[in-house]
Amino acid sequence: MRELKQITVIGLGLLGGSVGLSVLRAFRAVKLVGYSHRPSTRQKARQLAVASEISDCLRESVVNADMVILATPISTFEQILTEISDWLPKGCIVTDVGSTKALPHKWAQKILPKDVHYVGSHPIAGSEQRGVEFSRDDLFEGAKCVVTNNAKTDVEAKKRVSDFWKRLGCSMIEMSPAEHDRIFAKVSHLPHLTAASLINANDIETLKFSGRGMIDTTRIASGPENVWSDIVMANSANLAKGIEKIINELERVKRAIEKKDKKSIEEFLAKARIKRAAMMNYKIENKELES
Amino acid sequence: MRELKQITVIGLGLLGGSVGLSVLRAFRAVKLVGYSHRPSTRQKARQLAVASEISDCLRESVVNADMVILATPISTFEQILTEISDWLPKGCIVTDVGSTKALPHKWAQKILPKDVHYVGSHPIAGSEQRGVEFSRDDLFEGAKCVVTNNAKTDVEAKKRVSDFWKRLGCSMIEMSPAEHDRIFAKVSHLPHLTAASLINANDIETLKFSGRGMIDTTRIASGPENVWSDIVMANSANLAKGIEKIINELERVKRAIEKKDKKSIEEFLAKARIKRAAMMNYKIENKELES
Repeated sequence: MRELKQITVIGLGLLGGSVGLSVLRAFRAVKLVGYSHRPSTRQKARQLAVASEISDCLRESVVNADMVILATPISTFEQILTEISDWLPKGCIVTDVGSTKALPHKWAQKILPKDVHYVGSHPIAGSEQRGVEFSRDDLFEGAKCVVTNNAKTDVEAKKRVSDFWKRLGCSMIEMSPAEHDRIFAKVSHLPHLTAASLINANDIETLKFSGRGMIDTTRIASGPENVWSDIVMANSANLAKGIEKIINELERVKRAIEKKDKKSIEEFLAKARIKRAAMMNYKIENKELES
Repeated sequence: MRELKQITVIGLGLLGGSVGLSVLRAFRAVKLVGYSHRPSTRQKARQLAVASEISDCLRESVVNADMVILATPISTFEQILTEISDWLPKGCIVTDVGSTKALPHKWAQKILPKDVHYVGSHPIAGSEQRGVEFSRDDLFEGAKCVVTNNAKTDVEAKKRVSDFWKRLGCSMIEMSPAEHDRIFAKVSHLPHLTAASLINANDIETLKFSGRGMIDTTRIASGPENVWSDIVMANSANLAKGIEKIINELERVKRAIEKKDKKSIEEFLAKARIKRAAMMNYKIENKELES
């Protein structure tokens, strides 16, 4: 496998830019090349110095890369992999920061040459903000990061990718792409859809009365729709199932409300409070959150 | 109407305690009497000095009150009003901090003597924390507060209540109890039920993978179930309707997901993003949020 001398980040939004800044901070000896298909983004990225070098050409950006990180919306992965496939050096590692992992694995396996190694990554970091101007060199500090692999994944490549994210401050978890997508449908993609539903069910005159609760509950609905529609499309089966589960919960509490069954309502709310407390305690004990 | 020399707060949780501390700060000349039915809460309230005086007797706490503020769960209002009704001085104003307003109005009209004035209040402040130990003297600074009145409400009493909250830092809105309950079903009570549903639909092993999005989206589900089951019961018709609307939104995006209709998914998400941006801009322009 190749020594890590050049890393190329394709896509310079909040995540790609933050990978750039974090690499520049954590890997002093590595050359960090950035690419975005938008000239205006390349210009901003140059001004903000999120990379050692911003390339104007996708293929040129990868010809000397020891590691390539895709940080564009998931729907672009297939085409980007196709475009760069013949230009990747032997032994190069390709990874990504996409929020779903089954499709990226499928595309990588179909498109990439045998002597290039693909490992999936999903750093659990970000915000509802978008754009290279929100990049931070500490975005991954203290974050969880999932690496995904299948039976064909090169063990050494997986270790390299894992070590890479650790160096940026992440704590690592390994799982299969399918397990990843099942879990993150539930704890990330589904909350996004319920947040959007809460907003869409109301008119703006009503929303003016929102307090801190409604504001926090719907924060993620401010995320960019092009990124999120890709995620939803790429995880459609898990999400259709997940929506059904949420509807079942809502139907259950609606029945209790209609029957004026206070005991069931209180049990429903108590169950959520207790389970959420367990979740928060786990997060605090794991130092993922401040207590 | 009576000069404001004594205010009595019944119920010393986060809200009641914060009313106490805020009054002590903002009304130097007013005696603030507190009452809780729990001896342990009275003891804590004394230690924390959230009132000028903590009374051990509900009726005694109101006999010299010029204003009485109920800050207990809504389901207790009817009984408390019945217990204090004969002990309230002539011209006394009664209000409350309950999250629904139709039932409190109904009970007050039924129970209180003609020479006592009821006005509904709902300061939009609080947190998912509970207990007098979380009381703050600035909880109401910059908050919105709704006062509710019906055709029989005394105009001077309404002005007094409105002025009271203004002095604690609130900006005031007036509406009817019915309108209040319709609006807050949508922007407060319904988000609580969707947050609880999101938690309840998952097991704790899955919830360990939650990121900042899921954590914020479900924060309010950590609220006390006794308070919230009261609110849900007291606003049941609006909530049953509201749940149906949310289910409709979820069904709509589910259909789009099943049809792999990316355009509709993106429109659904874009609509939410744009509407939420309008909400946040309104909040920032109104100085309800920092920009």
